[in-house]
Amino acid sequence: MKIGILGGGQLARMLALAGLPLGCEFAIFSPDRQSCAAPLGRQMRADYDDEVALSRLAAWSDVITFEFENIPAQALQFLTRHAVVRPGVEALRLAQDRLLEKQLFTQLGIPCAPFQPADSLADLHQAAQSVGLPAVLKTRRQGYDGRGQVVLHHIDEFAPAWQLLGGQPAILEGLVAFDRELSVFAVRAVTGETIFYSISENIHHDGILRLAVSRPDDPAQKQAEQHADRLLKHLDYVGVLALEFFQVGDQLLANEYAPRVHNSGHWTIEGAATSQFENHLRAITGLSLGSTALNGVAATINLIGSIPDNTEILRNYNAHLHLYGKTCKPGRKVGHITLCADSMQQLQLQLPGLLRLAGAGDVCVKVDSGHHKKSNTGGDA
Amino acid sequence: MKIGILGGGQLARMLALAGLPLGCEFAIFSPDRQSCAAPLGRQMRADYDDEVALSRLAAWSDVITFEFENIPAQALQFLTRHAVVRPGVEALRLAQDRLLEKQLFTQLGIPCAPFQPADSLADLHQAAQSVGLPAVLKTRRQGYDGRGQVVLHHIDEFAPAWQLLGGQPAILEGLVAFDRELSVFAVRAVTGETIFYSISENIHHDGILRLAVSRPDDPAQKQAEQHADRLLKHLDYVGVLALEFFQVGDQLLANEYAPRVHNSGHWTIEGAATSQFENHLRAITGLSLGSTALNGVAATINLIGSIPDNTEILRNYNAHLHLYGKTCKPGRKVGHITLCADSMQQLQLQLPGLLRLAGAGDVCVKVDSGHHKKSNTGGDA
Repeated sequence: MKIGILGGGQLARMLALAGLPLGCEFAIFSPDRQSCAAPLGRQMRADYDDEVALSRLAAWSDVITFEFENIPAQALQFLTRHAVVRPGVEALRLAQDRLLEKQLFTQLGIPCAPFQPADSLADLHQAAQSVGLPAVLKTRRQGYDGRGQVVLHHIDEFAPAWQLLGGQPAILEGLVAFDRELSVFAVRAVTGETIFYSISENIHHDGILRLAVSRPDDPAQKQAEQHADRLLKHLDYVGVLALEFFQVGDQLLANEYAPRVHNSGHWTIEGAATSQFENHLRAITGLSLGSTALNGVAATINLIGSIPDNTEILRNYNAHLHLYGKTCKPGRKVGHITLCADSMQQLQLQLPGLLRLAGAGDVCVKVDSGHHKKSNTGGDA
Repeated sequence: MKIGILGGGQLARMLALAGLPLGCEFAIFSPDRQSCAAPLGRQMRADYDDEVALSRLAAWSDVITFEFENIPAQALQFLTRHAVVRPGVEALRLAQDRLLEKQLFTQLGIPCAPFQPADSLADLHQAAQSVGLPAVLKTRRQGYDGRGQVVLHHIDEFAPAWQLLGGQPAILEGLVAFDRELSVFAVRAVTGETIFYSISENIHHDGILRLAVSRPDDPAQKQAEQHADRLLKHLDYVGVLALEFFQVGDQLLANEYAPRVHNSGHWTIEGAATSQFENHLRAITGLSLGSTALNGVAATINLIGSIPDNTEILRNYNAHLHLYGKTCKPGRKVGHITLCADSMQQLQLQLPGLLRLAGAGDVCVKVDSGHHKKSNTGGDA
């Protein structure tokens, strides 16, 4: 099976590593000169609006997928006319625009923070009337890892914030004082069969995900699955989708979804029977899905900007290292560590040392000992 | 870390797949035009006696390893003078010669079947006096997958058998009526730290391994580890070593050892916290070893000569597919299936269907429900 991937970063690389044993071949389509996924397949270097190159990709591929959201939806639209694209262009188009995404959540009855569009500074003032303060002003498009966001506490901040974000179409969201950030990963097959991984509890720092911890049997699992399921059905989705939430008390408020494999699911490589990467490939190639049952508990620690001594990391018997083959730059995700354990207690014991090694010692580890009610994770169904 | 691998088959390929996330780069040294591992690294195509090419490999590599035994020991001896070679040449040299191997077992007090050298037909007659009949005549060198072996029941068979094996130096071994075939995989670090995986029960058919099943908490574990440990210490071994046994009653008789990752350990990819491939790399690059704890139970089913419909295989929620990127030929190992399960009972339920798909429906599945005494597997130490 020949798989074309738009984007050549670490997600494409981990897809290829998961797919080679399945007999998949890969074409990595990216405008970047150095794609860390390119050595694992056929490199196609071109801009996303290069229709000749896109046609070549379509002709070569049995199925096309993408590894990040900031691909022009037009490129996918073009490809859709010539090839099978999974997940579809609609899932990408809506995820690219925070306003459309939040409107979709609302339409589907998936709770989210109050929001209003703000296409101008005047709009922003009006939006604040309805949303209230404090609130977060976010560009509708192109934001990731906390970029393109400003928290507003007072009306005086509106004008400079509006300028800071470049006067782009924006959305004002009520600031949520959340208890936890969670994500749920769903995999939906061509047949509509849908399975879920246990939710992940995520800890960000400076807007970048630093730590993601599997939360088996979490009381929020069922609610997260129900919300994700509505989204998947509506989009007639095929592949892995990650839906991120803020938890406030017992309620989950949807933040955003990623129509792709997701950083907070990297622990599934060692921590689950089938990784998110393998399951995405199984889904988009029309195969049956693999078990999402967990192997104990697991956590992903991102390596941001630099790579610590691997000897030190792997001195931990339960640690696994994933380097992406990227050159180090401040703020850049260059790898991750996965820590596996039999229990939350054991994980909690070993996490701080690895977080310090990863330069994330300041990341508060809020991993409790897991006194939760049982819930059906869907993965064992 | 730059790793040179002698041999470019599926073991090299799976080593590379395990090593890329660790930041390893690979050179695949092989005389073959098409090495299935070559796309994952730098291909060096040359004969094993090409000292110019070997020098290039030595200059490029931080450490050199090998993926099969039938490499001239001279090549390793040459490399040893110019580079770090792990495991060492002595482990290879002794494994290449059944007589030296059995003499080593005897020297180390590791029980094995009675044996005698047979360098001539006259020797063979004399050997049979001491070993008894039935017995197996095996060439000392180059045998694998049951090739180069003849079972002898009667003195009349000696001359034709001697001819059949080409009059090569041979060894006569007493035929063992065994209850099970087992293998144990050990990993030994540069520091001498040694850990073990749970033993594997192996079922051969026509001399080729068809099925390998993890046997957690098996009563034979401790005995197998003790024997392997003596071998590892004697060889001052670094890396993964597989030691194969025949079990007769409560006794383990060593059959042979492989100074490398081993086919019967492929289930460690999904079935253990750290695969044999990752642990071999961690060992030879001087890193600490990873946990060998099991994820439930697992089995490897070899795909020999042909690849069944992957849709059918992966319809099983607990099955994983590993294709080697090789063209199909009768008798050739072209891939394997790993089946994972929470219990032996569950494994036993699902194995027959997959064995049939793999064209191995005739392989007797002797997997019981595992009423065994506990033993320390070493992996959790």
